[in-house]
Amino acid sequence: MARNGNSTSFFERAWERLSRNWKEVAFSGAKGMNLDLQKPTKSDITALKKHLTACLEAPGGEVSARARAADLGRLYLHQTAKGREEFLKVLARDFGVRREAVQSALGKLEDNPEDSQAHYLAERELKAALTPDSIRILRLFNSLPNGVKFLVDMRADILALEERDPATEALNAHLKDLLSSWFDPGFLDLERITWKSSAALLEKLIAYEAVHEIRSWDDLRNRLDSDRRCYALFHPRMPEEPLAFVEVALGDGLAGSIQHLLDEAAPAFDTSRADTAIFYSISNTQKGLQGIAFGEYLIKLVVQRLQTEMPQVRRYATLSPVPGLSGWLKSLSDERIGALLPTDQRKALCEATGKGKSAEALQVFLAHPETLLQDDVAEAVKEPLLGLTARYFHEKRQDGQPLDPVARFHLRNGARLERINWLGDSSTRGLRQSLGIMVNYGYRPDELEKNHEVYVNEGRIVLASEVKSLLKKTK
Amino acid sequence: MARNGNSTSFFERAWERLSRNWKEVAFSGAKGMNLDLQKPTKSDITALKKHLTACLEAPGGEVSARARAADLGRLYLHQTAKGREEFLKVLARDFGVRREAVQSALGKLEDNPEDSQAHYLAERELKAALTPDSIRILRLFNSLPNGVKFLVDMRADILALEERDPATEALNAHLKDLLSSWFDPGFLDLERITWKSSAALLEKLIAYEAVHEIRSWDDLRNRLDSDRRCYALFHPRMPEEPLAFVEVALGDGLAGSIQHLLDEAAPAFDTSRADTAIFYSISNTQKGLQGIAFGEYLIKLVVQRLQTEMPQVRRYATLSPVPGLSGWLKSLSDERIGALLPTDQRKALCEATGKGKSAEALQVFLAHPETLLQDDVAEAVKEPLLGLTARYFHEKRQDGQPLDPVARFHLRNGARLERINWLGDSSTRGLRQSLGIMVNYGYRPDELEKNHEVYVNEGRIVLASEVKSLLKKTK
Amino acid sequence: MARNGNSTSFFERAWERLSRNWKEVAFSGAKGMNLDLQKPTKSDITALKKHLTACLEAPGGEVSARARAADLGRLYLHQTAKGREEFLKVLARDFGVRREAVQSALGKLEDNPEDSQAHYLAERELKAALTPDSIRILRLFNSLPNGVKFLVDMRADILALEERDPATEALNAHLKDLLSSWFDPGFLDLERITWKSSAALLEKLIAYEAVHEIRSWDDLRNRLDSDRRCYALFHPRMPEEPLAFVEVALGDGLAGSIQHLLDEAAPAFDTSRADTAIFYSISNTQKGLQGIAFGEYLIKLVVQRLQTEMPQVRRYATLSPVPGLSGWLKSLSDERIGALLPTDQRKALCEATGKGKSAEALQVFLAHPETLLQDDVAEAVKEPLLGLTARYFHEKRQDGQPLDPVARFHLRNGARLERINWLGDSSTRGLRQSLGIMVNYGYRPDELEKNHEVYVNEGRIVLASEVKSLLKKTK
Amino acid sequence: MARNGNSTSFFERAWERLSRNWKEVAFSGAKGMNLDLQKPTKSDITALKKHLTACLEAPGGEVSARARAADLGRLYLHQTAKGREEFLKVLARDFGVRREAVQSALGKLEDNPEDSQAHYLAERELKAALTPDSIRILRLFNSLPNGVKFLVDMRADILALEERDPATEALNAHLKDLLSSWFDPGFLDLERITWKSSAALLEKLIAYEAVHEIRSWDDLRNRLDSDRRCYALFHPRMPEEPLAFVEVALGDGLAGSIQHLLDEAAPAFDTSRADTAIFYSISNTQKGLQGIAFGEYLIKLVVQRLQTEMPQVRRYATLSPVPGLSGWLKSLSDERIGALLPTDQRKALCEATGKGKSAEALQVFLAHPETLLQDDVAEAVKEPLLGLTARYFHEKRQDGQPLDPVARFHLRNGARLERINWLGDSSTRGLRQSLGIMVNYGYRPDELEKNHEVYVNEGRIVLASEVKSLLKKTK
Repeated sequence: MARNGNSTSFFERAWERLSRNWKEVAFSGAKGMNLDLQKPTKSDITALKKHLTACLEAPGGEVSARARAADLGRLYLHQTAKGREEFLKVLARDFGVRREAVQSALGKLEDNPEDSQAHYLAERELKAALTPDSIRILRLFNSLPNGVKFLVDMRADILALEERDPATEALNAHLKDLLSSWFDPGFLDLERITWKSSAALLEKLIAYEAVHEIRSWDDLRNRLDSDRRCYALFHPRMPEEPLAFVEVALGDGLAGSIQHLLDEAAPAFDTSRADTAIFYSISNTQKGLQGIAFGEYLIKLVVQRLQTEMPQVRRYATLSPVPGLSGWLKSLSDERIGALLPTDQRKALCEATGKGKSAEALQVFLAHPETLLQDDVAEAVKEPLLGLTARYFHEKRQDGQPLDPVARFHLRNGARLERINWLGDSSTRGLRQSLGIMVNYGYRPDELEKNHEVYVNEGRIVLASEVKSLLKKTK
Repeated sequence: MARNGNSTSFFERAWERLSRNWKEVAFSGAKGMNLDLQKPTKSDITALKKHLTACLEAPGGEVSARARAADLGRLYLHQTAKGREEFLKVLARDFGVRREAVQSALGKLEDNPEDSQAHYLAERELKAALTPDSIRILRLFNSLPNGVKFLVDMRADILALEERDPATEALNAHLKDLLSSWFDPGFLDLERITWKSSAALLEKLIAYEAVHEIRSWDDLRNRLDSDRRCYALFHPRMPEEPLAFVEVALGDGLAGSIQHLLDEAAPAFDTSRADTAIFYSISNTQKGLQGIAFGEYLIKLVVQRLQTEMPQVRRYATLSPVPGLSGWLKSLSDERIGALLPTDQRKALCEATGKGKSAEALQVFLAHPETLLQDDVAEAVKEPLLGLTARYFHEKRQDGQPLDPVARFHLRNGARLERINWLGDSSTRGLRQSLGIMVNYGYRPDELEKNHEVYVNEGRIVLASEVKSLLKKTK
Repeated sequence: MARNGNSTSFFERAWERLSRNWKEVAFSGAKGMNLDLQKPTKSDITALKKHLTACLEAPGGEVSARARAADLGRLYLHQTAKGREEFLKVLARDFGVRREAVQSALGKLEDNPEDSQAHYLAERELKAALTPDSIRILRLFNSLPNGVKFLVDMRADILALEERDPATEALNAHLKDLLSSWFDPGFLDLERITWKSSAALLEKLIAYEAVHEIRSWDDLRNRLDSDRRCYALFHPRMPEEPLAFVEVALGDGLAGSIQHLLDEAAPAFDTSRADTAIFYSISNTQKGLQGIAFGEYLIKLVVQRLQTEMPQVRRYATLSPVPGLSGWLKSLSDERIGALLPTDQRKALCEATGKGKSAEALQVFLAHPETLLQDDVAEAVKEPLLGLTARYFHEKRQDGQPLDPVARFHLRNGARLERINWLGDSSTRGLRQSLGIMVNYGYRPDELEKNHEVYVNEGRIVLASEVKSLLKKTK
Repeated sequence: MARNGNSTSFFERAWERLSRNWKEVAFSGAKGMNLDLQKPTKSDITALKKHLTACLEAPGGEVSARARAADLGRLYLHQTAKGREEFLKVLARDFGVRREAVQSALGKLEDNPEDSQAHYLAERELKAALTPDSIRILRLFNSLPNGVKFLVDMRADILALEERDPATEALNAHLKDLLSSWFDPGFLDLERITWKSSAALLEKLIAYEAVHEIRSWDDLRNRLDSDRRCYALFHPRMPEEPLAFVEVALGDGLAGSIQHLLDEAAPAFDTSRADTAIFYSISNTQKGLQGIAFGEYLIKLVVQRLQTEMPQVRRYATLSPVPGLSGWLKSLSDERIGALLPTDQRKALCEATGKGKSAEALQVFLAHPETLLQDDVAEAVKEPLLGLTARYFHEKRQDGQPLDPVARFHLRNGARLERINWLGDSSTRGLRQSLGIMVNYGYRPDELEKNHEVYVNEGRIVLASEVKSLLKKTK
């Protein structure tokens, strides 16, 4: 969730406040342990290992073990970044997979014929043996208030380590597996968020919105107006933390401009007349859940929900950025452009910029995309630039997939490329990353499965006729 | 939860009604598939495999896969017992661990040095490969309404199979692992149940109570009166199904008679004067969660809750049956009794029955325990019988643990043996299984951890002084 | 809510338990005052008056006054019936309307011209002066937990006084006015009651059901099955007390037999195919709200609710008793019957009983209505008896209204007489009060207003064609 | 709730948005009636009267009447201010008290002896007759969603009429009576408001805060921090509208400066160490409930709640403005000051301003109160100004009550004057209205009743010793 800009923006203040609060609140009842791991001595490390071992062996039964885990959690949270790193290293290196147990199970596996009871048992034993002790310890946190969030944040810490050695890498992977099973979509709850939601929750939307920054409470209120919907996924053990959320605008027809949707002064649309739902922002919120995908599940669940609640709405589509476009355009040689665009379109580019080669002309727009806001310039170069965008979606990586990461996500979900919008995002950021161009991906419930199949199996993308026409005008 | 008695008792009617309802309600929206597995043809089996494969491969993405799972669930529920068995066999045999994937991971494991990144990765890959396909399919059920309960009941079906082959045994084990991770205590919610709880929920207590059968709504109401507490554990995805529940009576001093506690006519105790909480019934409710233990967690959580909410209560103890006592007494030879009891006590037994040998005298009481309800008989033989009971708890199995299963559970939790109660349970069942004797296990928060340790490590049981005196009077 | 029968029926046990609980719970925090009014001395009365005056004058502000009211409430609740009567007499006689204040306001009223400010003010002052002090005191109870219920029950006590003098009569009337304004339908909440409702609430249905006694929890469960609806009205300050409730059965077509609806063994009707909602029991629960009507409001609110939630249901009707029928039949002279029924019908009556006169024949059935359960008897006399019933509804009291109280209620609401059902209620009670005959009143949303008007203004009853045919066959 | 300042402040935007929303939402389902009362014709007035009469006479029963009321409400809401005035005039003049009914009841009253049944009945009949028809109509609104809020706002409209004739004045008075009975404290719910409350509700706090304007969401958040409490009263039929709310700060010792409390940068106080609760802002929110007092009830309820929840807090006091101080100081003649202050204090005032007379010196500070922010000036004149303030509280109006309206409120409630704070409110507003001086009123639970009594009966104010010392230093 990298963000540019000055360090005291609205969302960043919200974010800082949340972080500060969290440290105060989590495990507040647990015993403090006097262990500073910033520059740990040998005896500090011994003390830490002893505590970890106590959690693992659970003398006094499981309930005591969990109390001990709370102490451990508190210890971790109150370390500096350096101290946390030391903690993680000890956890990763000294509480890994028990190799003897693995060997023993392997032995049984080999000694017994397949399909025998003993073979089956050995398989299961081997599976159990492959769970590192670190994970056995971390599992204890699930019962603690804030314990699940603690693990999610601990994984974010691991991901943020400057250097990960094989052991911490393995810890990361196993922790991801653990979180994947806990955060399986089936365990999540979809909830609607409205202006009647708790201010404490809404403040988190402000901090977490990753696509189109929320600038103020008035901005947020507009996104929760009567012609909007906002849905988030929650985990039962993290009830105050949205895991992912989507912002939806109801209207008639596809929306082509994000600035229009975010205009606080625009009147609310009468939803009884709405026929289209536009998903204009989808954010994942938890860094520690990196690689665990909620997006597809969230979108499709919301489509299902809207189908039931708003039968008048018959069309579901996104308004999405094209983050890779500028980079790709930049990489195009003049020859390549020649192979993509017909002469007249190349000429238009050159004339509008006074450059002799279309590649040079392109560089002018990439360096000064704000000139595209001028009507006459736009008029002149809209066609070739939209044409190149259409070709961009047609390009493939070596693995046969599209270049654009957002496209890969939606097309894999079974969406189609519905429309390419000129000046869809006229913000500085939008102009810089894609010359202001945005696209709509259409989610048509009936064709999702089929589209997904042809995309996955044949690498084929379903295009709406409008996009096909754009393509046809290119070479 | 085996129960004796005639087939139309109060709880059984509740139970039947629940089962009937369930089949009607679960997956009610899913498509029916016309597949009768009672006597499956080859093409039936092929169709089933095809459906299972479709769930596994998830064409159309995860959301579609889950819809397919609902169809599968409906198919399963509407089979006969025989049909379900066929289904389970196909699932177990044809959707097991993929051996090639295991071999491939094993190869990498061996080819790479320990502590190398590649070795770590291979470990994780091997672990993943050891998950059978059946489990990958069943996991899809977690997102379905009633899906988790469906899996729990499916495991109950597996456990009820007359004959399990290695494959179904392996399926059972893997399904248990899956359910263990889902039903980890940390994910469960403890909730108090009162007379203000939903009748639909209370009806389940009636059906599920496994220790002291609930005979009527009035009986239940008495157990939820102002001097009682009832707590249950719930899983977020089975919100209407208590997983385990405990019934607690508040009073002053240890309770020694279950009939007194279940007496509907007895007035409610003024809880502001209560100093003791008696846990007089603990039930697990889900057959499909066999082997996944909630009891310790439940009791200790309730103790913690009561410590906070009722600081005037300072003592926590159970009133528990001694299910193995009669069996053990039956097995005693006259010589053995001679080694356990002093002469006068043996003599008392003989005189009360007119038998010449104390072993024979014992058999009389075991055959006609109701005679112990007579005051004069009780007077005469109370001492030797309580003495033998104290000895019973002192006896060990080959593995060094106590003979009594209930004792093993509580002592392992860190409880102590607090008191042995004459005529604690004067019901037919109580007289038959333990000559009416019940015991209290004391849960003293401060000593739980220590007691657990000495029990586990040294096999030592902590006895209250009263029990020690009983022991001393024996040989 | 008079009930016949032995004193330990199911509902009566529920009722007694509720009453006992209530006295223990209400005002439990308030100070006890040592005042026994069973045989009050002069100084007891003085003490009581002093306490009442303190509530009225509210030294220390309103919050203190309310604390004092709680003491007063506790004092009242712990008196015997005789003590309560003394309390009520003091309240009624010594805390009435202040006559001087009335005179003063009357003076101003006369001294000032109508439509002058002073006249308006005098009117309002007079209105205020006409509120007795007793009511000013009782109003304080609204803020106390259980305070509103306390007043409702106090009014029930007043209504139950053996003898009411003018002062207690006036207190009753003013208290009714107060409760009428507090229990205005607009302040009530309609809530659906299901098997998932609290057992504590369901127990109240058992105690309060006034029309068709609930015999067991199984009976209740059947009335809350998937093809049933139950709705109740609640007051925000009495959230655990239903004020009135209605039981509804969903099915296809009019239901004609109450025994069929209450048959626990009958399978549930598939509500997606239901086209009719039958209101088969409507109960008011609070004796102290006598004369304050919720019935019409409840029925019409439920009709509105069902119209929204179950659009497939297009017909709303009651299945109602005819409590006045047997009494009326008993009063018929032979001449009167001659004027009502044609010869062949009279003859049928005589033949079936062996009596010479139809009036005598009627007396036979009234004395032994159970003979109507025999098929051949029923066959013979069904026509004349249904005919007489149709005439019964046609008869008017002196004030122009129908004889039957239940009919007056529904017809005033705008319902029509839909059908007369032979053996609608074959219970002893049903046979005795109306020879087993029940009727359906139809609530057709479109015609309620019109029917109400013609009923109120012209005394005209709307009859369905089926009833008209019955009438035509009479003279 | 008069506010100064420019028209687009933070709270005003919130306020405008709320008003706009309300008109859109209320009675949204009701039929529109085409009646524009801006310049009503005779037939418009006739149509209006007809509609009002229809509500009153309720053809079709009460349920229909309420539907008609919704139409009426919608009609009213969509009128201009002028149109609403016309509506109110018709309602007030043509739907007043029915004089014939009053006369008839008066006749019966006179004709019957006191204490006779007939006399009692006549009293009650007269009382009923004194309810104007307008109120009978308006009562129907209680059942409509938003209906109660509608009436509250309608009364606000009446109060805002430029000119009220006797009829609208009477309507106002009767409507106040109706609302007084509906908004009786006993029917209100006290709820805590936190940062977890709904944003829609919090936005209302922003709009409604009447004492110390909320400047931003961050300001609000600070007022809801962990060392703060905020409680509001709600009516069950206006669940989203706080009627009155109080803001409380927890700390150690009396707070003397409002700026300190509102400082967003100040760290939160550890509430486990708090011994004092400061009520620093109490706002009534509904203009239409003018004259119906919630303040005392709210404060005392919150004190009770805090006594239970935070036993460590032992002191309850306000931090209150002194709105009448500057006005009173302005009115002081030099002689009067001579009679109040000793020579040295008067001299200090003169020297600090270079004026010859202390009255002139006072005018300097009243004209330029910001000079008091300078330390040396403050040092010089603090004593005489605090002294005059102490005397201000000692002054009485003709009716024997204190001059200050805020003082009258708290002292009547039984509070004592605890402390006078120099520079308690250094804002422009605070300096202008009271030279920055604020006071604490202490609410000591034990003495509230007694203080109330001596205040009401003897006009005596209880002063803390600190205030007494100040007084002693004056003459």
